[in-house]
Formats: sequence, C-alpha cells, structure tokens
Amino acid sequence: MLAAGATLVSAPSARSQTANLTLTAVPGVKVGHHTIAERPTGCTAILVEAGATAGVDIRGAAPASAETDLLKPVNLVQQVFAISLSGGSAFGLDARSGIMRYLDEKNIGFKAYGSINVPIVPAVSLIDLNVGANPKIRPTADCGYRAAQAASTAPVPEGNVGAGTGATVGKSAGSARAMKGGIGSAAIRMPDGLIVAALVAVNAAGDVIDPATGKIVSGVRTENGKALADARALLTSGAIRQPARLGENTTLGVVATNAALTKTQATKVAEMAHDGFARAIYPSHTMGDGDAIFALATGTQTGNVDVSRVGALAAQVVADAIVRAARQATSIPGYPAARDLR
Amino acid sequence: MLAAGATLVSAPSARSQTANLTLTAVPGVKVGHHTIAERPTGCTAILVEAGATAGVDIRGAAPASAETDLLKPVNLVQQVFAISLSGGSAFGLDARSGIMRYLDEKNIGFKAYGSINVPIVPAVSLIDLNVGANPKIRPTADCGYRAAQAASTAPVPEGNVGAGTGATVGKSAGSARAMKGGIGSAAIRMPDGLIVAALVAVNAAGDVIDPATGKIVSGVRTENGKALADARALLTSGAIRQPARLGENTTLGVVATNAALTKTQATKVAEMAHDGFARAIYPSHTMGDGDAIFALATGTQTGNVDVSRVGALAAQVVADAIVRAARQATSIPGYPAARDLR
Repeated sequence: MLAAGATLVSAPSARSQTANLTLTAVPGVKVGHHTIAERPTGCTAILVEAGATAGVDIRGAAPASAETDLLKPVNLVQQVFAISLSGGSAFGLDARSGIMRYLDEKNIGFKAYGSINVPIVPAVSLIDLNVGANPKIRPTADCGYRAAQAASTAPVPEGNVGAGTGATVGKSAGSARAMKGGIGSAAIRMPDGLIVAALVAVNAAGDVIDPATGKIVSGVRTENGKALADARALLTSGAIRQPARLGENTTLGVVATNAALTKTQATKVAEMAHDGFARAIYPSHTMGDGDAIFALATGTQTGNVDVSRVGALAAQVVADAIVRAARQATSIPGYPAARDLR
Repeated sequence: MLAAGATLVSAPSARSQTANLTLTAVPGVKVGHHTIAERPTGCTAILVEAGATAGVDIRGAAPASAETDLLKPVNLVQQVFAISLSGGSAFGLDARSGIMRYLDEKNIGFKAYGSINVPIVPAVSLIDLNVGANPKIRPTADCGYRAAQAASTAPVPEGNVGAGTGATVGKSAGSARAMKGGIGSAAIRMPDGLIVAALVAVNAAGDVIDPATGKIVSGVRTENGKALADARALLTSGAIRQPARLGENTTLGVVATNAALTKTQATKVAEMAHDGFARAIYPSHTMGDGDAIFALATGTQTGNVDVSRVGALAAQVVADAIVRAARQATSIPGYPAARDLR
C-alpha cells in the first residue's frame, strides 16, 4: 500500500533509532508533556510558535473544548500558535491558560491591535477523573505552562505521559475490565518531502485494533481479566448494550504537516484524519466520547498540494499513533497494559 | 406591536421601579459582575445552578470561546450551569475557570461518573485590550470566581460593569471617534407567564440604533467629536471602507427564558436572537466581531411552547438590551457615552 521510498512505522520494533517518526518530525512543531504525580493525569503542549494554519473536527458527542469556533473556515483567524491537550475533563482546559501565558511572555500571537498579540491556543480535554483516587486533582494552568516549557523538537515521548497519563481503553464492559491507554505518535516522510504526522491521546471506550491485521491490541478484557474479550463480538452478540458509558472516554488527536494548506483545507484534513479513529478504535465517536482532531499546516513544503493525499496519510498516521499508544502504555493499578497480556 | 398586557421596556425612563425587567426576571437565573479597577475590564457570571437547557449561535467571525462544541444539538450534554462573559479577548476566557471553581465547591455540574460532577460553563470573551493603558491587565479566574460570588437574583446592574466595563461602540472610523458601550439587560413578561430576557455586553464596531425609531443612540462621532456621524451614511457614501477594524470588537449576549425548550429549540432561539443584533447594531456580525449569543431555558414554565414566539421575543429583548447598554453607559477617558451627547 505504501509508495516506494516511503517510511512508515506502525510498530515500536520497526522504528528507526535515528529518524524522528513522531509529531515533531514536522519542522516547526514542538511537543512537551507535563505529567502530574498526585494522580494519573497531565497535559501536553503542541507549540507552533511561528504559527500554523489550522482546522478542527470534533466528532465525539461529549467534547470539552476551547477556541474551536475561531477555526470555522469562514472566520477571521487563520493560524494557531499552540494546541493544548489535557486530562481532567472540562477542568483540564485550564492547561490552555498556562500555554497562553508561556506564549504571551514571548509576545507570540495573533496581531490583534497595535502591539497587542493574542496567543491563539485551541484546547481539548479528555476525561480521566475516574482514574486514581482523587478526582479533584486535575491539570491546571501551571501544568500547561510546564508542558510548554518542556516542549522540544525531540521525538515525542509516548505511553503514560502528558495528556495520556490517565488515559484508558476498552471500557465497553465497564472500567473493571479496561486497560491502559496513553500517548502515541507516528509520522510518514514521503520521497517528495511531504511529512504528515500525528499525536493521539487514546482514552477510548472501545478496543484498539491494528488495522494492518484486524487484531485487537488492547481493550475490553475477559471476565477473568487475563485475555482480550473483543468489544466487537460483545456488541454484536448483544452481551453489552451500552458500549460507551458516559464520563469515561475521549480520544484526542493532532495532525501536523509541512504542506501549505489553507484553513479550509486543514479542516478537511482534520475531517479525513478521523478515519484513523474509525479504523483503529471500535467503537469510536460515541455519545460518551469527545473525540477531536486538530490539523496543523506549517507550510514550509510549498508546491502543489493534494488535500486528499494529505488527508489519507493523516488518517493513516492517526491509526498508527493509536496503535502505538496502546503498545507504549504501561500498567497502572487496575489497568494492565497491552504489553502485560502478551 | 405588543400583545395587550405585555410589559416591554426599551428606555430607562419607562422602566418600572418594582418589576425586575432584566435577565434575572427569569426564575433560577442569577447574575454577578466583577469589575476590575486597574483597567476598564471585567467579567460577568450568569448562574443557573439548577441547570438550564442551552444553545449557542456564534455569528461573528472573530470569536473567543470555550465549551461551545458540547452545545451542538446532537451532542451529549443537555444543560449548562453557568455562562461566563468577559473582557480581555482570549485571555479573558480564564474567568470561566473561576466560575467552575465556584460551582465545583458546591458540587454542581454534569453527573459524569459516580459522584464526580463537572460544571458545564460555556464562555465567550470580548476584546477590550485597546481600552485603557495596560493591555496586560485582563480578567482572570479570580474575576470569574468573584463574579459568581456576587451573583444574585436582583435586577442586573447595567452600564460600565462586568464584561461591559471596557466595551466601546462606533469604531467604524477608528477608536478616536468611538463611544462607550457596556452591559444592558431587558425582559418581557407575557400574560401567560412566559418570560424572555436578555443580557448583552455591547462592544460593537458599529453604531447602536434604536429599532423603534431608527435613530442612532451611540456610535461613530463626527470628526469634531461632538455629534453622531452615522456609520450607515459613512459606509454607503464610501467615506469608510473598513467598517470593523480587527482586534476592537465583539458583542456578547445571553438570552434566558422560563419556557421548557429542547436543546435543539434553545439553539434555534439563540439563532433568532441574533436578529436583535442585526436590528440594533450597524454594521453587525463582521469579520472583526466575535458576536455570540447563548440561549438558556430553565423550563419552569411548562405547556406548549412555540419556538418562533420565544425566538421573536428573544430578538426583541436583545435589541432592547443593546439600546439600554448604550444609554446606561458612562464615559471613560477617550470614550464619551450616549448621555454625554444629549
């Protein structure tokens, strides 16, 4: 399926030690995590300090979000300067404030009026309040500031970090049979210089499925907790009737490319990128998910852009990132990780 | 035009001293302002602690917003517990965090998981960073918390308060010829018990026009600053070509009713309420405005609801509130108020 010369990585073992095949493969993109010690939660700052044309598509029915209305293609602002991802449900949107402060101190933002720059930092949060002992511990503005301070162009750390720290998967039969999710990232570098990359914080009600094999990587466990139960089979057999309980789920993604896209094109790429959720998570986009994907286009790779090509690759790296998130996750009390079931 | 027995107030002089004809005319709605001393800015908390079915329509092209995606009718959450309005552009969205904290301390919110409640507090901000000396002074989470603490069912204070403290109008020919905007509120009580009310923070590029007379209440001044210039005439004559400069404008509204509306119906009411902006502001809904209206339905008035009736009345009280905002405003350095030109 891949063009000759393309580099695509979907399993950790295949990942090169030298090439950066994470979101920061796109020049101009920095990523930083801040992980909170008191409860499994945290936040992730994706910085594009030179500005990136952006779009968003929110296809889960229970989103926690900020500064997404300005991304409607008809609206004024064309570029964002960061994206905030966090745990903590709607409370965790506070991480955005800290990222804004970090950018404001550097006077980075939309030139609003005279010398006044307003950092444009859309934000989405996932709900992890049910994980760990104290739901009152949530990412704050300080979390966002520290994540921004930690941001770098190094390959993105994956697993139980940042916004994925408290993320879990496979909750279709209740959290007692769930497993650990987390952060995954993947990138593809095309021979003509096009780069498309994704970072996903996987906190799905559903199972994580590797689209390359159709096999479940992580998800609902059997009642004895020792094997994968298969949410598809549980749903189609009628064994479960509420595959996504409320207040437990939401998968968040950011796609970045060096292509030069318009805001409308970036929005289309964000939409197509959701196909990666559809392929790698079952079920996805439920009433109990706040699934959201942002697309960022830095525009350093000029020339003809085929939006469908960027969008198709975006869906692919999103699916890859989801599979990586499941494979890179490590267990926490109550939530074993995929690597533990091998 | 009014039904016999209806009480409608569009001018301060006509307002009864006894009936509450502001947003808090709707039982279950509390409003509190916090006004910041260091620069003309502030925030306003609209509390509906028992929950209100809500919708939103954002029709300006430069919005600063949070928690609006969840209000899409197809999405899960049906009720909000507060709305945050603030100055300070995107920075001012922090006021929302303080309102969330206030509600969280009372354990009010969407029942997300077990005993975990998440206060649903959509927020929008207007830009007033160009007003006063120091644009680094903006509403913070503390502002929102204090506004929530101050919230009451008393008639809503209007003029230079809360989110309207730094609001200005009539900027189509530049801020040097602008005037002071602010907060206005109006309500209508129908003989059958239906109440529809509005609160608006008027920070328009355009003129404020009283739809009852077609006359300008406040707006662009003549070059000598002593009279109203008429933005309509300036635009149609070609004297001005950029009627809404960026980084100066945004009018925010909240409509409340005691009617029992579905979320989809509340969304329709928010949409129709924008007709009040169209009637009372010229020009409105520009690329340089982030104009937004929320609709809240408390549902204590049951029985048949005609959504078009509620929406038409909403547009009317929104227009009334806009006119009141201009009339209740008081001057600040550089920005005379309507009452000063009389």
